[in-house]
Amino acid sequence: MIKKIVGNSDFIEYLRGKSATFALSISTTKTCEIDGLTQAGIPGLIHLTPTLDAEFFTTQEVRSLTDIATTPKGVPTPALISRAVHLLNPFREIEIFDLGVEVKPKIDYFKIYEFGLSYTKSIKEGAGIDAKKVFELGFNFATNYELKSDYLILGESVPSGTTTALCSTLALGYDCKGKFSSSYKDSPESIKNQVIKSALKNIENIEDDFFKLSLVSDNMLIFNAGFVVGASKRGIKTILAGGTQMAGVLLIADKLSNLKIDGKNLGLFTTKWLAEDENSDLKALLQMLSFELNAFYSDFDFSLSEHPALKLYDEGEAKEGVGAGACLVYADLNGVDKYKITKKIEVFLQ
Amino acid sequence: MIKKIVGNSDFIEYLRGKSATFALSISTTKTCEIDGLTQAGIPGLIHLTPTLDAEFFTTQEVRSLTDIATTPKGVPTPALISRAVHLLNPFREIEIFDLGVEVKPKIDYFKIYEFGLSYTKSIKEGAGIDAKKVFELGFNFATNYELKSDYLILGESVPSGTTTALCSTLALGYDCKGKFSSSYKDSPESIKNQVIKSALKNIENIEDDFFKLSLVSDNMLIFNAGFVVGASKRGIKTILAGGTQMAGVLLIADKLSNLKIDGKNLGLFTTKWLAEDENSDLKALLQMLSFELNAFYSDFDFSLSEHPALKLYDEGEAKEGVGAGACLVYADLNGVDKYKITKKIEVFLQ
Repeated sequence: MIKKIVGNSDFIEYLRGKSATFALSISTTKTCEIDGLTQAGIPGLIHLTPTLDAEFFTTQEVRSLTDIATTPKGVPTPALISRAVHLLNPFREIEIFDLGVEVKPKIDYFKIYEFGLSYTKSIKEGAGIDAKKVFELGFNFATNYELKSDYLILGESVPSGTTTALCSTLALGYDCKGKFSSSYKDSPESIKNQVIKSALKNIENIEDDFFKLSLVSDNMLIFNAGFVVGASKRGIKTILAGGTQMAGVLLIADKLSNLKIDGKNLGLFTTKWLAEDENSDLKALLQMLSFELNAFYSDFDFSLSEHPALKLYDEGEAKEGVGAGACLVYADLNGVDKYKITKKIEVFLQ
Repeated sequence: MIKKIVGNSDFIEYLRGKSATFALSISTTKTCEIDGLTQAGIPGLIHLTPTLDAEFFTTQEVRSLTDIATTPKGVPTPALISRAVHLLNPFREIEIFDLGVEVKPKIDYFKIYEFGLSYTKSIKEGAGIDAKKVFELGFNFATNYELKSDYLILGESVPSGTTTALCSTLALGYDCKGKFSSSYKDSPESIKNQVIKSALKNIENIEDDFFKLSLVSDNMLIFNAGFVVGASKRGIKTILAGGTQMAGVLLIADKLSNLKIDGKNLGLFTTKWLAEDENSDLKALLQMLSFELNAFYSDFDFSLSEHPALKLYDEGEAKEGVGAGACLVYADLNGVDKYKITKKIEVFLQ
């Protein structure tokens, strides 16, 4: 079932049976290598997670490593959920937005958009992004982007992305402490706060928003903020596929845009694990926006599974990523039921 | 599940969720009237099989006869498989390429492309085709062909087509004896060899490839060979839907083309019965090509059915035709499972 966070439920109803393009934004920030900050991948190889997610989602194979990315606690990547949905009710197109990764995904035929971006440094040392340029890249790309289906689902794979999102929105003056989620069940607040504190120290005397973000953000957040402004201007139905990280994209877009953003054709779809998470507050983040948009989540969980690795999701580990929540909403919009999705995911773990 | 014969598995992954046009090439060669050569139809009425297949595939009715074409052993036409898939996940378009049949299919609304071709004589007496003209017809048609979906599935219904395919490739100098399949479980080798021997005798002193094919081939093989050359030149994603007969189309195209064929956007999809057949060798035929292409098969079989007529497929009768294998791959690419297909086919036989 699909549940509302904010917005107009007719937005969802209109999308029933429509075709979707899934664009996966992949990017690496060296922030992810700070010990204990994220569990989105294999320790020491977390920078590979976006590459592996792109490979697995499109081809069901991991080609830049020998096995699928699993956290130290054994939580498999949410790419499994997205892939299962794609098998059951395929997306019209899957495209990759390469926003700077260390290792390019080894896939053929699929469209990979390149923007000349490389992975970014840890926000502790100043990320070293040309934020104005990256924002304009995203805006201009949206202006010329040819959507080959009825709507666009924009997902991401960026390990430690909630840390950079929280830091970026704090830098822009939003009061969002305690509202961002973590891939951990027990969020490593002390490490996270320490990293953010140290990053914000670097921008203490800076006034320009773009300059601030150049030091404390990541390419995915800034590029997609620009993309959202361009897409909403054109009225392209665009779904941000994710939780608080994607709320971060919207908050950045709202702050940086010269244009008033019209949220009528904008959505944000996420998982139950994220939307009902007691340690974060997605709804509050969305309510800080100067425009209204349509945010929904799927109530899918692993109650029909006995698999211990999947049960970890229900216990609050992982929660979201690779557009898993939007994929589950998309599945619902196309009549694919919970049982089928559960069984398909279980096959990957056999 | 989809299994690889040769090529790049990303080709398959890219096609997930994409829309397809199915073009059925129908053609009659009087070779099919040689007693005991083919079981693709009703004895005495085998020339009607392409007409009936076109009617049944598009409308679920046989209009030029009272019942669906069944072999003397009771094997129903593979058009049942193609039709079932079309009902479960319809093709965007079904079109007919009329490459010379005795009786036109009685169908309305569907696009039937006419090329002024009539059925051809038995290869024993010299088929009497203007091969150069037919090849160019196919090439020119592909050059102007307007594809209304993402990719094209090109199937065929030509009784005794494996005999003419084997004879054509032998005539062009390919070492392909024993590599072509038969609609029979126990292939009628002696009759087939006798026919081919007698046909090849007619071209003993001919050097020109087109002239050779004019005597020993059929319209479907030559037209589609030209079509493949034109389609690959334009980069139209084209799937040859069939087994060794369609490998024959490719071998002819490879030999006759002035252009180097690029196989990146070419596929060949077939059934498990054909790909795993021990009496033929599709893979070896494809490896004779000077270019690489993407060949896959569906592992669908009738293990979920108790119907004796369908069980004959699993025992090695029939195997392929009317693009059945490509339809099964297409079903997989669109999330339609084996159980659903089996049950849908069984309904036709009630």
